[in-house]
Amino acid sequence: MNYSEVSAEELNKLLQQEQKELKKITKRGLQVDMTRGRPCKEQLEIAMPMLEKAAEYDYALKAGDARNYGQPQGVRPALELFAEIFDVKPEEVIVADGASLNIMYNLIQFAMQFGVLDNTPWNKQGKIKFICPAPGYDRHFSICEKFGIDMITVPMTKNGPDMDVIEPLVASDASIKGIWCVPKYSNPTGITFSDKVVERIATMKVAAPDFRVFWDNAYIVHALYDTDDKLKNIFDVAKKAGTMDRIYSFASTSKITFGGSGISAMAASETNIKSIMKHMFYMIIGPNKVNQVIHVEFLKDLDGIKKVMKMHADILRPKFELFEKKFSEAFEGDNYLSWSHPKGGYFISLDVKGCAKRIVEIAGSVGVKFTPAGSTFPYKIDDADSNIRIAPSCPSLEEMDYAIDVLISAIKIAQIELQLKRK
Amino acid sequence: MNYSEVSAEELNKLLQQEQKELKKITKRGLQVDMTRGRPCKEQLEIAMPMLEKAAEYDYALKAGDARNYGQPQGVRPALELFAEIFDVKPEEVIVADGASLNIMYNLIQFAMQFGVLDNTPWNKQGKIKFICPAPGYDRHFSICEKFGIDMITVPMTKNGPDMDVIEPLVASDASIKGIWCVPKYSNPTGITFSDKVVERIATMKVAAPDFRVFWDNAYIVHALYDTDDKLKNIFDVAKKAGTMDRIYSFASTSKITFGGSGISAMAASETNIKSIMKHMFYMIIGPNKVNQVIHVEFLKDLDGIKKVMKMHADILRPKFELFEKKFSEAFEGDNYLSWSHPKGGYFISLDVKGCAKRIVEIAGSVGVKFTPAGSTFPYKIDDADSNIRIAPSCPSLEEMDYAIDVLISAIKIAQIELQLKRK
Repeated sequence: MNYSEVSAEELNKLLQQEQKELKKITKRGLQVDMTRGRPCKEQLEIAMPMLEKAAEYDYALKAGDARNYGQPQGVRPALELFAEIFDVKPEEVIVADGASLNIMYNLIQFAMQFGVLDNTPWNKQGKIKFICPAPGYDRHFSICEKFGIDMITVPMTKNGPDMDVIEPLVASDASIKGIWCVPKYSNPTGITFSDKVVERIATMKVAAPDFRVFWDNAYIVHALYDTDDKLKNIFDVAKKAGTMDRIYSFASTSKITFGGSGISAMAASETNIKSIMKHMFYMIIGPNKVNQVIHVEFLKDLDGIKKVMKMHADILRPKFELFEKKFSEAFEGDNYLSWSHPKGGYFISLDVKGCAKRIVEIAGSVGVKFTPAGSTFPYKIDDADSNIRIAPSCPSLEEMDYAIDVLISAIKIAQIELQLKRK
Repeated sequence: MNYSEVSAEELNKLLQQEQKELKKITKRGLQVDMTRGRPCKEQLEIAMPMLEKAAEYDYALKAGDARNYGQPQGVRPALELFAEIFDVKPEEVIVADGASLNIMYNLIQFAMQFGVLDNTPWNKQGKIKFICPAPGYDRHFSICEKFGIDMITVPMTKNGPDMDVIEPLVASDASIKGIWCVPKYSNPTGITFSDKVVERIATMKVAAPDFRVFWDNAYIVHALYDTDDKLKNIFDVAKKAGTMDRIYSFASTSKITFGGSGISAMAASETNIKSIMKHMFYMIIGPNKVNQVIHVEFLKDLDGIKKVMKMHADILRPKFELFEKKFSEAFEGDNYLSWSHPKGGYFISLDVKGCAKRIVEIAGSVGVKFTPAGSTFPYKIDDADSNIRIAPSCPSLEEMDYAIDVLISAIKIAQIELQLKRK
């Protein structure tokens, strides 16, 4: 309802009423953690057959035994699997250990210490900046903070980052060295970049010769429905435009097999891959290739992955749909909040006006934890105090039901409090 | 034999004779690669029961499901296992992915970029230097080269690095930030540091507050015989001396289970561990904890590891003993070469006078590959051209027999050639 037209007296009554309602809901006394996009137990069970057969797989590969040293770029079958996922050549892929975030961090650190290809190390170029579409993924922003890289916040639209803002910036400022993107089922807004946005990112004029697009394709195969969003292959555009060296793309099986114990990969031009492998020679002996063989034998190919992802979707979909149903019922037509309706990925993004922090606080006080408000913005500064990231994957349906009731009540309380303050 | 007292004419005859001998040997035409300390196929089979039971283990740990995100320091059972190996507390341990070299590299990079504890980043301290006992492990030296860290070569003695050389250096020069050590069954000389050397390293006066001992205990449980070398626990000494923050220790299961697909760990003071974990928060989501559980369930504890290592020793010992036998027969009493008689580890160290490169070249020309001569020294500069590292683990006994015959012949040819040049 629209609280702005309600009298102070009436608001106080509504507040008391809603506080009673919250007390009633929380009588069940559940503790629900929705802070991160963690797979739930049922999802983790999907990959157990992979371990059941682990001793049966053939580890003696053409390039050498996967159980021994060597093959630092990853085993060929894993390179081929991710080449199919990224839709690039195996030579354009590196397969590494569990987390793609680790590859991203390393690429930034390589750039800081040694420079990108033949360019001066970022450590020696003075102030470095990154374009950070927001709301976005907090762990991307954390890496920038760690390295003292200035973050330029750019709004996300329903088609991707606002390119009208980005293009003039990167064209004129050579200290802007990169952009963070989650192009499909974006974290947290759930949107998929339009073809036009993909094309503009791949072809835009950049002042810095060592500018890199960190294309974190974390949810590349993570559809909730058969009508999977179509993301244009940025490498195809870049190859035609001669900007292939600009793109670093990432993916992992953290939400396909095991969180953090899967395998991860990056795709880039062969020039980039060769340069990165030269750095990595000093850093690693090699990735866990046994785990790579185990993964490839289990997942087989993109079709095999899609079968596994359907099992994930069947577990996740009801949780997303429960949120949609309850929020539609509670807030249909209310213009003081809006939420995303993602067709894939791990998050629902909720926008409220000026009371995100308070909502998260109220929910937290009764045992329902959300990602701290502000986390989805650079420096954790959400000027409008508007965005809350909902991660429905981990709780059970029952916990989810409870958490949404709490959240709905918390939203109402925070809204009434806000109106009261304004009176 | 002593070629220096042989006439040129006689030497030429001997050379022809030996060249014929080499031709005879190489009729079998084998290709043998002894460049790295790779486990052989039979060794890799030892760990296969670990995979057979991978689906049966209980991954639901107190701190959370090992198959999910979280527990970035490693799972508790793995921390406890390595605490027992290092003889420290679990709180003084981080368990990471496959290769301890990766941890070492990261620690150097953290120090370069962010500094050690509260000290100025090494990147901002001008020239940085490391003490490099040699012959030593080439991959340690490579990391220094990568970061432009000056390497100060210090001789290895039969008790460890020459402390009489090291102590005055580190006491007076604050730009010396560390020392590389492989304290047990050293790579490549096979010696174990004496108690006195361990004590001196832990207690010596160092000018740099951010000096670190990189104690690469790669062969901590890698005995070839029941009479395992005893290495004094450097942490015990350091704790008493109040120098605990100085020590970083490393180990891995690369030569216990699978090369590069095992688990690795470091031990250090809690102050260091906390600081390192703060850096790692930005870098990783977490290690492969499924692999950690699999390893702990298979290895159980230090006793369990010793049982596994006995199986390794039974495979490796005959190879080391074959070398010893054939070299004793060929060169007993010859004073132009000497070789190590390790009781553990992965290498035999061979010292010749002024013809290491030529020997490796001759052997390589007939298909027997050794680590390039010089590799065991900083900048690959072995002034005396003396050291050759022999890695007996990977070849079969038959291949080993062949490779040693080739090596013996190559040594004789190189020696005769050297004497001829001097005539």
